[in-house]
Amino acid sequence: MNRICDLFNIKYPIVQGGMIWCSGWELAAAVSNAGGLGLIGSGSMKPDVLQQHIRKCKAATDKAFGVNIPLLFHGNEEVFKILIDEGVKIVFTSAGNPAKWTPFLKENGITVVHVVANIKSAVKCEDSGVDAIVAEGFEAGGHNGREETTTMVLIQQIKQQISIPLIAAGGIATGRGMLAAMALGADGVQIGSRFAATTESSAHENFKKQILETGDGGTLLSMKKLMPVRLIKNKFFKDMESLENSGATSEQIADLLGKGRSKRGMFEGELEEGELEIGQIAAIINDIKPAANVVEDIMQAFYSAKNELIKMAF
Amino acid sequence: MNRICDLFNIKYPIVQGGMIWCSGWELAAAVSNAGGLGLIGSGSMKPDVLQQHIRKCKAATDKAFGVNIPLLFHGNEEVFKILIDEGVKIVFTSAGNPAKWTPFLKENGITVVHVVANIKSAVKCEDSGVDAIVAEGFEAGGHNGREETTTMVLIQQIKQQISIPLIAAGGIATGRGMLAAMALGADGVQIGSRFAATTESSAHENFKKQILETGDGGTLLSMKKLMPVRLIKNKFFKDMESLENSGATSEQIADLLGKGRSKRGMFEGELEEGELEIGQIAAIINDIKPAANVVEDIMQAFYSAKNELIKMAF
Repeated sequence: MNRICDLFNIKYPIVQGGMIWCSGWELAAAVSNAGGLGLIGSGSMKPDVLQQHIRKCKAATDKAFGVNIPLLFHGNEEVFKILIDEGVKIVFTSAGNPAKWTPFLKENGITVVHVVANIKSAVKCEDSGVDAIVAEGFEAGGHNGREETTTMVLIQQIKQQISIPLIAAGGIATGRGMLAAMALGADGVQIGSRFAATTESSAHENFKKQILETGDGGTLLSMKKLMPVRLIKNKFFKDMESLENSGATSEQIADLLGKGRSKRGMFEGELEEGELEIGQIAAIINDIKPAANVVEDIMQAFYSAKNELIKMAF
Repeated sequence: MNRICDLFNIKYPIVQGGMIWCSGWELAAAVSNAGGLGLIGSGSMKPDVLQQHIRKCKAATDKAFGVNIPLLFHGNEEVFKILIDEGVKIVFTSAGNPAKWTPFLKENGITVVHVVANIKSAVKCEDSGVDAIVAEGFEAGGHNGREETTTMVLIQQIKQQISIPLIAAGGIATGRGMLAAMALGADGVQIGSRFAATTESSAHENFKKQILETGDGGTLLSMKKLMPVRLIKNKFFKDMESLENSGATSEQIADLLGKGRSKRGMFEGELEEGELEIGQIAAIINDIKPAANVVEDIMQAFYSAKNELIKMAF
């Protein structure tokens, strides 16, 4: 018995994180078909594109899947109407206030999960009636909490204060990582970066290859004066770093960022001038393979690490 | 059988981190007497003071204990002569090149451990012939690596590349944290912050109480242009942050830092103007108690979390 498997009706408590430019219907369906929970990442989709992805995902799997909605970009009625109309059963919300849309989603019979990066938001989630929480640590790729709390610390803290199911995210790409998250008290894991480098990921091939080449210290947070985001340290990152180190204002930072940087980097494969969002754990990702193999490898390593841990004695 | 217990001849694979202004002979002896490995943190001691601490520690315990030597401050012959003269058996070096002193220490029959924060240094340690490595993640208090790699990511990475015993540090203060570190592949753990808030810690009472009041997001890295250090966000931190955000040079940062800030904060209890080094995990430290109770509590929670993990099935 596992609370995350039960909540979503899935085989393994592995959620594939909803990632802009990487996780369309093809990746989500592949993960769900492999026994995890696939998520369509709507952050980079216009409403009509999202609708197409949901329809294609329904056609490609009869297993549970979900949609991730970053409320900051998509917290509007048009998007939520599509979710209802298309019969989406599981919604992960992020980057916003869980109190605003949770009651509406729950009234429509949808299982709601909200993504947090600090203890205050976790408590607010439980009060808002969400079904589960994703707690995402500092090591995660993309947008990141200002507290900079790591997965190791965040999961322990939240576990002490909330009772609803808890999904750990950030720094997890292997069976060992999954086992560690569960040792900390998580019921399941959300994995992003590892799935960005799969055959079914919609990321540009250049970006996928760049993930494999990213080593220890290859990512850092950027643009803390706007909204912190973990990026690969490419030319754009370094230009931004120089600007920030010179004491630039948030306006100057927004000017250098401009529009469409993440699309250029992750979807169009412009490795120097684009924004390349990935987690620290990219350092141990060394191959591009089908999502189903990722799930299998993680579970195999998980059971093997668990047996090792059981035998440990002192 | 556990490689860390065997290496140091201790009961539990728990090392108490050597911390400036907190870990003198009293704390080290208490931890060693409780079944862990106590370390005298020499970073804040002049050579004659260190010698007194070693002598008092030998008188207070017949168990194994060690000395931590930050090479940046103490990498000199006077200090190493004291270690040999006093018959110290275990030395943890940090903040410097492991290749320089390891052969000398090994020739004198001393067990050598070096502290690293990235994979490159870990590999160098193994090549230098150290007996074990402490790998310390971004969430740790005090001085910190420029890669900002978290414990979750760092331990997995290093485990894949080295074969000597591995001690995880950063974000660990509980039995769950210890179990998670071992799930990631560590053989043991080094715990700092939790021991800073013990009866035997030589920290000022004001600082100990401040640790209990530090919550989620209560610490951040400071002075990245000099050497990154994790501090409680007090007045000094905020003054420094404003200076850094204005684009200050490393000289201007060093000027504001001045001399003796950490002593003022941690040893003299000046909570506003002093430097207060502590890890993120301070957020879940809620009481000051004897070090022996800390060790007992950790081990009890460790076995309990382990049993929970064993029962987990899906």
